[in-house]
Amino acid sequence: MIKLMPREMVFFDLFEQSAANVHAGAEALAELMHNYVDVPARVKKIKDIEHQGDKLTHETYDRLNKTFITPLDREDIHDICARLDDILDLVDTSANRMTIYKIDQPTEDAQALADCLVQATQSVVEAVGKLRDMKAPEEVLKLCVIIHTHENNGDQLAQRALARLFETMDPINIIKWKDIYGDLEMATDRCEDVANALESVVIKNA
Amino acid sequence: MIKLMPREMVFFDLFEQSAANVHAGAEALAELMHNYVDVPARVKKIKDIEHQGDKLTHETYDRLNKTFITPLDREDIHDICARLDDILDLVDTSANRMTIYKIDQPTEDAQALADCLVQATQSVVEAVGKLRDMKAPEEVLKLCVIIHTHENNGDQLAQRALARLFETMDPINIIKWKDIYGDLEMATDRCEDVANALESVVIKNA
Amino acid sequence: MIKLMPREMVFFDLFEQSAANVHAGAEALAELMHNYVDVPARVKKIKDIEHQGDKLTHETYDRLNKTFITPLDREDIHDICARLDDILDLVDTSANRMTIYKIDQPTEDAQALADCLVQATQSVVEAVGKLRDMKAPEEVLKLCVIIHTHENNGDQLAQRALARLFETMDPINIIKWKDIYGDLEMATDRCEDVANALESVVIKNA
Repeated sequence: MIKLMPREMVFFDLFEQSAANVHAGAEALAELMHNYVDVPARVKKIKDIEHQGDKLTHETYDRLNKTFITPLDREDIHDICARLDDILDLVDTSANRMTIYKIDQPTEDAQALADCLVQATQSVVEAVGKLRDMKAPEEVLKLCVIIHTHENNGDQLAQRALARLFETMDPINIIKWKDIYGDLEMATDRCEDVANALESVVIKNA
Repeated sequence: MIKLMPREMVFFDLFEQSAANVHAGAEALAELMHNYVDVPARVKKIKDIEHQGDKLTHETYDRLNKTFITPLDREDIHDICARLDDILDLVDTSANRMTIYKIDQPTEDAQALADCLVQATQSVVEAVGKLRDMKAPEEVLKLCVIIHTHENNGDQLAQRALARLFETMDPINIIKWKDIYGDLEMATDRCEDVANALESVVIKNA
Repeated sequence: MIKLMPREMVFFDLFEQSAANVHAGAEALAELMHNYVDVPARVKKIKDIEHQGDKLTHETYDRLNKTFITPLDREDIHDICARLDDILDLVDTSANRMTIYKIDQPTEDAQALADCLVQATQSVVEAVGKLRDMKAPEEVLKLCVIIHTHENNGDQLAQRALARLFETMDPINIIKWKDIYGDLEMATDRCEDVANALESVVIKNA
């Protein structure tokens, strides 16, 4: 039993590293939106963070394939890991679009959405950090409620952003920002998916 | 054995309530499209139906976590429930876009797509209602075929709608309606996903 | 045991037929893009291939439901089959858009993306063909790496295509091609999903 423990614990280590990496990606995106200089270097930095996330994801899957006894259901480990990866993919996609779409200057709405994502991923980091200690399930659940609130806030921000965008009456501008706002809102949605996965794990193991 | 029965049956009750609620959402959407007055109140009504759907979904998941013996495979219960929820999400999204995109007047194509969705969800209600009585699997399958027909019809309607939309040569109009037609078509696709889930359940339990 | 063998082997037959059919669809799409005449007949040919794919998918699911002992995990068989189907759906969707959007002439970027998809599906055919012989797992894995390379190439092509598209400053043109490029890129992504499913099968059964 004791010998299995370290093997088990590595999944919590990997979750924590992944969540921290996702949060770093969200912060790098918010920095890009607020301080729109050296754009290629900042977009490249986000791409590097995304690659780091891919490595963590593959390591988790790899260990899952090699581990006989896991601390959580295999499918839950897979799910949490995949949903964390989804957030980072969308962070990278939206940063990438800034260069492909040759965006001159981020809008205030894009900044607000990126800030909302930073808050949501901060709560994801905290919730994932509490997962290891199954003795405090209510703390995980409390943080999941906060993630839901951020997601709800992201929805409101995205709706307001879209409504304002259509007022510009500039079709190419609308096409570009609709995609980017959509990515940012979806990234916050994926934080909620992580929260749902964590809630389900906590309830099952309560 | 007898004591387990009521616990089992609650899943069929929840499916029937969810399906009826989905259908009520589709009907409210068709009403909005055909009688485009008091738009904010009508959109709000659809949002309320969507919230009711969320409650039913959570109650189903909750009971699934607490129930040891389920009348169908756990993953099938989860799947049917999630796909019903997907339909309603898209109903809500499309209604919401009507206000965010400041749509002046629904197109005839949007009305036809909403009507198609009402027919599809009506068949979903009927199919789900037959699920409880596993002695009549062929009746469920027959209704699933009808749902596939509605989905096929929705595809045709959406293609015709899109082709007509591009004839307007009005880019902002195209951007707006392409999204809404897409939501409506996808909602009908999700009805087909429910049909697929029901078919798989019926075949497994035949 | 010996009597079960033929039943088991049928899944590999079905995978090979599905993969060959997906590749035929990609080739028909590339032909459409390079030789843009008799468009309705060529689009119809792709639709027929897609219907053939649906039949193979249903037959696979059907056999899965009726087979007690399967050569691979049931969910893996389902997954490989579903991901192959996803590729073909996107091939059909993109061909279909050529007529719905009344495209006059394919762009060079669309041709390059279709060619990339042909290469990716060719590697999918080869990888699926090696699956039957579990004694050569490293050959499957080698082909999966090639599929990842094609997917990566598809990403680069799509980004270049999008950047060039926005330079046209023609909103309706942008709306149309953004969708088609998106379909083509996603089809290549789905090839990668097949590769991921194959990798996971090979690692589990190594």
